[in-house]
Amino acid sequence: MAILLTPGPCPVPSFVAEAIAMPVMPHRTAGFEAFFGEMKEGLRYLFQTEAHVCGMMGSGTMGVEAAMYSLFKEGDAVLVPDFGKFSRRWVDYGKLMGLNLSTLTKKWGEEPSVVEFLEKAQNIPDLKGVVLTHCETSTGVAIDLEEMAFVLRRALPEVLLLVDAVSSVGAIPFYFDAWDLDCAVVASQKALMNPAGTVYVAFSERGRRAVRQTHPSDGRNLWNYLDFADRNSFPYTPPVQLFYGIMAALGHIRGAGLPAVWNRTHSSAKTFREMLLKAGGVIFGTGTGESLTAFSIPGTEAGDLRAQLKEKGFLLSGGQGELKGKILRVSHMGPVCGVEAMIRLRAAIHT
Amino acid sequence: MAILLTPGPCPVPSFVAEAIAMPVMPHRTAGFEAFFGEMKEGLRYLFQTEAHVCGMMGSGTMGVEAAMYSLFKEGDAVLVPDFGKFSRRWVDYGKLMGLNLSTLTKKWGEEPSVVEFLEKAQNIPDLKGVVLTHCETSTGVAIDLEEMAFVLRRALPEVLLLVDAVSSVGAIPFYFDAWDLDCAVVASQKALMNPAGTVYVAFSERGRRAVRQTHPSDGRNLWNYLDFADRNSFPYTPPVQLFYGIMAALGHIRGAGLPAVWNRTHSSAKTFREMLLKAGGVIFGTGTGESLTAFSIPGTEAGDLRAQLKEKGFLLSGGQGELKGKILRVSHMGPVCGVEAMIRLRAAIHT
Repeated sequence: MAILLTPGPCPVPSFVAEAIAMPVMPHRTAGFEAFFGEMKEGLRYLFQTEAHVCGMMGSGTMGVEAAMYSLFKEGDAVLVPDFGKFSRRWVDYGKLMGLNLSTLTKKWGEEPSVVEFLEKAQNIPDLKGVVLTHCETSTGVAIDLEEMAFVLRRALPEVLLLVDAVSSVGAIPFYFDAWDLDCAVVASQKALMNPAGTVYVAFSERGRRAVRQTHPSDGRNLWNYLDFADRNSFPYTPPVQLFYGIMAALGHIRGAGLPAVWNRTHSSAKTFREMLLKAGGVIFGTGTGESLTAFSIPGTEAGDLRAQLKEKGFLLSGGQGELKGKILRVSHMGPVCGVEAMIRLRAAIHT
Repeated sequence: MAILLTPGPCPVPSFVAEAIAMPVMPHRTAGFEAFFGEMKEGLRYLFQTEAHVCGMMGSGTMGVEAAMYSLFKEGDAVLVPDFGKFSRRWVDYGKLMGLNLSTLTKKWGEEPSVVEFLEKAQNIPDLKGVVLTHCETSTGVAIDLEEMAFVLRRALPEVLLLVDAVSSVGAIPFYFDAWDLDCAVVASQKALMNPAGTVYVAFSERGRRAVRQTHPSDGRNLWNYLDFADRNSFPYTPPVQLFYGIMAALGHIRGAGLPAVWNRTHSSAKTFREMLLKAGGVIFGTGTGESLTAFSIPGTEAGDLRAQLKEKGFLLSGGQGELKGKILRVSHMGPVCGVEAMIRLRAAIHT
């Protein structure tokens, strides 16, 4: 069996698979409410927040779009830095929503600097919100979220700060409350090492106040999920077994402690990158993110290298969009993609 | 461990749980496409259709709403019979969408007759579509879908026929093509005996032509799911492991054959109802559906009976909405809720 080292979907450890196989519990019961309450506590630890958390069914993309849909409305001035496939998706969705959109476009492989971000934000009249992609899974780069949030909050305290944390929360340092964020979205199939199918969202008090209330049948609007979560409940039939899997992952993360989990990502990235550079490989772009590494090996076509590694038992991702055929991407998220896997991968690349 | 006899979520058999625990497969691969193609074949068998099938993440409610959203638009004349909690939900959603809505309201526990349905439909100018709930999970009654579809199609051949088949497909006889339906929605956690989290939708050629094309980011619109399904792909990160579980259920259903599966539901319902009547119990309403039985036992408060049965190891559902505290509901869907479970339940009710 090949090792899955793609930056999402990530491999599901056996303790998660076993949790998902537990018998389903009826969801309009005190037992479910107690369970949901515990899950919220686990999610608060994960996001490092004392504020609001909820879950919904869907992919990471659906989660970020739901957050944008819930916080903003047609005509709102919103800034979306665009530096890869996923951040560009939020630009496209903002256009679809009819937002008064400003972008800050960087070449793929680069990320916006704190200074240019602040300058841009300060020059937008009546700026309502910002959508920041913490880690661009398409290029491997990460923004300096802590600094960006800090300068934005000082200059424009009321601007809503929405973070695509799909491949950062649970993988690299993330402090929702300390960084004074308003909304952050993470997906189940990345550092939470679960099957795809659910997303989890944190809201500050300010963020939650900004969420538009709509009809209960508006499944994209997070108001309903937050409202039910207050009562430890869920607006639709909840995916109970998927929540079991998330609880198992949260238990694992809490048991190890976030600093140890973040350090595992760091060690995996460091090990791989040192090995890569020694083998004459090149890290794509600025390489500021540690959730994954995008790379190439000069003289070897990316598709060929991917096929060779697959034959040796390692599944990596190729490039997306304009990077198709130009790079490979390897995940450093979760226990399966740790240092040990990187050491094994090294042997495969060297030979 | 108590036996879960609630009409959704239904118990997950071990062969489904084991399938979900299989290692994830990357989804932008030929392997995933082949797998998705097989899943479509299984879904076609399940719905008894040669036409279009797709899946999406969400609950049954989200699936039916997505189908309504995809097929109809503001101002469209749509008829929605209202005879329980779920069919009323489609009325509410139709209002939210701004449809030109007509309803045919029945007391909970009754279902619209074929004649009154046809009369109503024929008196609506420019009728665009009909939303029929095949089995009302809140009351246990089922409509005569085959006859209703037949008379509607003869009288108004172009009207779109959308069916909430959430608790009917895979449980009771259902022939999408032979009945000339346009759209039907089933959820994973009912007769498909899987965790909640995914829904599956069939479309006729006529139905598919009616689906409005929108932006890829419009996650409620089934156009995208159908478009990707044509290429054996999925518009978002697919819930691969949940699809594994569905494949296992479809394999089970195909192996047994739908007639045998439908007969299992029938035998379970028949066994339970004979026993119930002998014990002095009362079937709620017309009892036309076999996916579940809604019932009460005169002289015993429904909540007390539910608590007694729970103590004896049987989890049943109570009533919903206006039926809260008045009835219990027991499922006849899936292998765990078969005749054997009903025989065991009989002993618990008798003593």
